[in-house]
Amino acid sequence: MQLALDWAAKGMFITAPNPRVGCVIVRDGRVIGAGHTLAAGQAHAEVQALRDAAARGNPVRGATAYVTLEPCSHHGRTPPCADALVEAGLARVVAAMEDPNPLVAGQGMARLRAAGIVAESGLMAAEAREMNIGFFSRMERGLPWVRMKAAASLDGHTALHNGRSQWITSQPARDDGHWWRARACAILTGIGTVLEDDPQMTVRAVDTPRQPQRIVIDSRLQISPDARILQGGGTLVVAAQADAAREALLRERGAEVLMLPNASGKVDLPALLRELGRRQVNELHVEAGFKLNGSLLREGCVDELLLYLAPTLLGDAQGLFDLPRLDDLAGQRRLAFHQVKQIGPDLRILARFPGAPASLS
Amino acid sequence: MQLALDWAAKGMFITAPNPRVGCVIVRDGRVIGAGHTLAAGQAHAEVQALRDAAARGNPVRGATAYVTLEPCSHHGRTPPCADALVEAGLARVVAAMEDPNPLVAGQGMARLRAAGIVAESGLMAAEAREMNIGFFSRMERGLPWVRMKAAASLDGHTALHNGRSQWITSQPARDDGHWWRARACAILTGIGTVLEDDPQMTVRAVDTPRQPQRIVIDSRLQISPDARILQGGGTLVVAAQADAAREALLRERGAEVLMLPNASGKVDLPALLRELGRRQVNELHVEAGFKLNGSLLREGCVDELLLYLAPTLLGDAQGLFDLPRLDDLAGQRRLAFHQVKQIGPDLRILARFPGAPASLS
Repeated sequence: MQLALDWAAKGMFITAPNPRVGCVIVRDGRVIGAGHTLAAGQAHAEVQALRDAAARGNPVRGATAYVTLEPCSHHGRTPPCADALVEAGLARVVAAMEDPNPLVAGQGMARLRAAGIVAESGLMAAEAREMNIGFFSRMERGLPWVRMKAAASLDGHTALHNGRSQWITSQPARDDGHWWRARACAILTGIGTVLEDDPQMTVRAVDTPRQPQRIVIDSRLQISPDARILQGGGTLVVAAQADAAREALLRERGAEVLMLPNASGKVDLPALLRELGRRQVNELHVEAGFKLNGSLLREGCVDELLLYLAPTLLGDAQGLFDLPRLDDLAGQRRLAFHQVKQIGPDLRILARFPGAPASLS
Repeated sequence: MQLALDWAAKGMFITAPNPRVGCVIVRDGRVIGAGHTLAAGQAHAEVQALRDAAARGNPVRGATAYVTLEPCSHHGRTPPCADALVEAGLARVVAAMEDPNPLVAGQGMARLRAAGIVAESGLMAAEAREMNIGFFSRMERGLPWVRMKAAASLDGHTALHNGRSQWITSQPARDDGHWWRARACAILTGIGTVLEDDPQMTVRAVDTPRQPQRIVIDSRLQISPDARILQGGGTLVVAAQADAAREALLRERGAEVLMLPNASGKVDLPALLRELGRRQVNELHVEAGFKLNGSLLREGCVDELLLYLAPTLLGDAQGLFDLPRLDDLAGQRRLAFHQVKQIGPDLRILARFPGAPASLS
């Protein structure tokens, strides 16, 4: 199953909105075929593994398939994988876990058993769930998994008071940040960051055939039509105050403008998350500044912090998150450390809010 | 040698100002005696290991001794260990590293070789050095190794704006902090912390037969004679402005008062470190507040941060260190991560300033 998970990881950047799935076919202790789910609309892991076995001249009748998620049982963009496994004559199928998709949810396993295949699930389930944390979030809550990336000094500062901050973390840490961008369905930022840094918000430091959707929170539609984040088109600008002329200019640049005002005339962030869930966003990667980060945290819109800490002290400078003063520690926002790793000279910390799945570390 | 280091660690809290040393005597691949250095004036590791072998009826003639530091060659409070090893008839002595003490510095090894013993050094030297980082600091620089302990939230805050901070980190992290207090020769704090929290600054959460010396930086002698840090006597109060009446009151409580003013009428912190070096302080443990921490950092008086990070966000609150605003990242204070470990729900980070020995991790 670890091998199947390794195969699943090969599809990290491409399967969205489908889950990342790996499949390994084994006979007599030998791997005779393996594969992973391809881009949406193309083959799933099971079919890829069967094709691989066929291409290598390995008969699969009577073999065992290890698959990181229950084989699908419905006709989606591709025919059901359960049927393919039945037709191929496998003797046994071991799934890491059942599919949370209500269109599958145990029916894949049932289909296999009905055909006389020994079908089990639950092997390395936690690891398999972790691999598709966003897909599970969307299936179970209708919401994306929201991962907020930030970089700070050891004393918790992200920039100097004059805004200078380019080089707090190292090149390896910044490249690692692109790996997390690449696995997300969408990248969210705010108008503050766009006006200050004019970022592209694309994946460049790692190879990927798919760029995540870019999203800008821009309540008053202040974004310039020449902003680099609009280049290449397809960027979603979320606003709260309509302005037909500005909207038209942005649409000319290939952007979509979405009005989602809340009662205070700002963007309704929880409503945006629900909308992104409907649009099949599994993992939402947030790279924003002090203010939008604070708003997302205050409104309970964040599942996980991805925090890069550089081993440096900046002294009196810009803090991480715009959060209110507390009079009592009862108001603190508690998380749990999930994973800590050294990346170059820096530290990468993953920490989760309660309600998020328990730590694997 | 790893076993000898494990033995050395058994003396972690007691050997000061001597180094922590372990010794294991081996014959035919079997450990026939082991020991560690005891409190100052009592036996060193080599003698303890020889005694242990004798007590167990194991002859040591022709055996090999592994010792984590070069055996001493001079008459200090105890006779030279090199002589004891020669008299016992050992065939070979392997030391992790040579003793930086100018009274030894290779002479122990030379003494062994002159007596026909095969004497080598350099095995696990980095680990052995780490074990006695304060002793090496004092021998090489005449200064203690200064370790600054702090606890903060993930967003870099130590307390709420109203000073409430008792429970940011967990019980396991606070107990772990006492382990670091216990290994230090002295604990340093400031008058701000004394006035706010009235701490005892003793080791309570771990067992130790020796309490570190307590030191308070109190430029204007504001400390109350009833402060808990004075209880038990022996506390060193370092001031910058003399006041005979207050000094007399403190001396009545068993405290020592030391005047060390600098040109600005504050305590001369670098001069204090030199004085503590002269007083044989190997490791100095700092537990102070925002202001004294900032002063020590600004004056380059810190070698290492021992930072406990709790997985929580406190928002707008008290920062870690009182450091000036920077206009340029060139002014940042860079460190290097040395070790990171999860302690209960919290994270313990050791980070060192350049010039400190390189990371072992």
